[in-house]
Amino acid sequence: ARGRVVLVGAGPGDPDLLTLKAARALREATVILYDDLVGPGILDLARREARRIAVGKRGHRLSCPQSEISARLVAFARAGEHVVRLKGGDPMIFGRAAEEIDACRAAGIAVEIVPGISAAQGAAAALGVSLTERETARRVQFVTGHGADGRLPGDVDWRAIADPGATTVVYMPRRTLAAFVERAIAAGLDPATPAAAVAAATRPDQAEVCGPIAGLPGLLRTLDPALPVTVMIGHVLRDVAAAEARKAA
Amino acid sequence: ARGRVVLVGAGPGDPDLLTLKAARALREATVILYDDLVGPGILDLARREARRIAVGKRGHRLSCPQSEISARLVAFARAGEHVVRLKGGDPMIFGRAAEEIDACRAAGIAVEIVPGISAAQGAAAALGVSLTERETARRVQFVTGHGADGRLPGDVDWRAIADPGATTVVYMPRRTLAAFVERAIAAGLDPATPAAAVAAATRPDQAEVCGPIAGLPGLLRTLDPALPVTVMIGHVLRDVAAAEARKAA
Repeated sequence: ARGRVVLVGAGPGDPDLLTLKAARALREATVILYDDLVGPGILDLARREARRIAVGKRGHRLSCPQSEISARLVAFARAGEHVVRLKGGDPMIFGRAAEEIDACRAAGIAVEIVPGISAAQGAAAALGVSLTERETARRVQFVTGHGADGRLPGDVDWRAIADPGATTVVYMPRRTLAAFVERAIAAGLDPATPAAAVAAATRPDQAEVCGPIAGLPGLLRTLDPALPVTVMIGHVLRDVAAAEARKAA
Repeated sequence: ARGRVVLVGAGPGDPDLLTLKAARALREATVILYDDLVGPGILDLARREARRIAVGKRGHRLSCPQSEISARLVAFARAGEHVVRLKGGDPMIFGRAAEEIDACRAAGIAVEIVPGISAAQGAAAALGVSLTERETARRVQFVTGHGADGRLPGDVDWRAIADPGATTVVYMPRRTLAAFVERAIAAGLDPATPAAAVAAATRPDQAEVCGPIAGLPGLLRTLDPALPVTVMIGHVLRDVAAAEARKAA
């Protein structure tokens, strides 16, 4: 039997936000290598006898080096297994899919991608905030707050982040948001730009804080540090931020 | 009976790329207002007796004005219907969701959002190209080539588009790509940057053209004008563009 590898997006958290195709890939898998960012309940969609292997990130560190994950995908596929590599969100957006795709292709292993709802999209749906708007938000950008060494990446295009006509979503902002906001404001981002941080978006334990971006790093500390967080910045968040201000008043 | 409105993302084309939640919302709907960008086969997931109403865009024009769509959503919900507003891709990314959410909220109608796989994600999965990469592509941005008047929007941040460290996806680029590329190159985008245009991504009639961005507007003309197209620009496309060059040689 020929093995194969399917990179599957597990979506932002709610198991109902897997695609029909992702749910089928999970049902068909004989081996599943999964990330910590995969929400609770999602592995229940797999067959009981499927082998489940955690390879995910803990505390912003890979518990298993990327090269070892790639090697295991190839080895299982060579042994004839139907391998699902299950990643939080969309494998193609901050999912390190490129390394794993390249490893499979180099080994002559068939690899398929099943996209997933990314964290930004889960947060947007949960807050009822469109990431784009005619006239006012015609560009949406996703950036990571977390470089390979865990620090803020050195090559961020701060002018692009400061553009008042864009919506920005920062992935994995926990450790670096204060530095990120400082640099963005220095590049021209209005400190009063509405913003929100959403923890565990689309999950039952979802929590969010909203306010002007200048104050968001302080608010972020009030969210449970164990939960994954996404930060959204831009004019599209004005109603959410205003509602929060009314609640606080 | 209380009516309600659910804005549902239909994904990029393949019906299997709807989420489990979207499929359930379709099964529960009594009235469905849908866009033309919704791929074939997706409406088959609805109940046979559900009322299906096309309100979508044809030839880049709304066949039904936005204000009328919003008014119909509210009217159906007030009549107690379970309304699904079905949009191609993700309602929150170039889906004009804000207008419809605002109209429902103003009328006191409960509105829920079910996110969808956006065109950029469908194209990335179909080509096997990760939109982000460690070190080389730490920002991904989605822009529209299509302003309210059908022309290139006047307020694009061209320096953000020209950033060699970003991946850019252009939605609805058909009419404006030549002007878009000219402006981006004038702002500093390398004319040799790898790029791809994907028509009907994830559908059986998917077709793509690849090459340096400077030549993509010419290649775009070879794709069936009836199909929706997404353009992807950036270093992440280097392998796809190189494979295409080998095929052509």
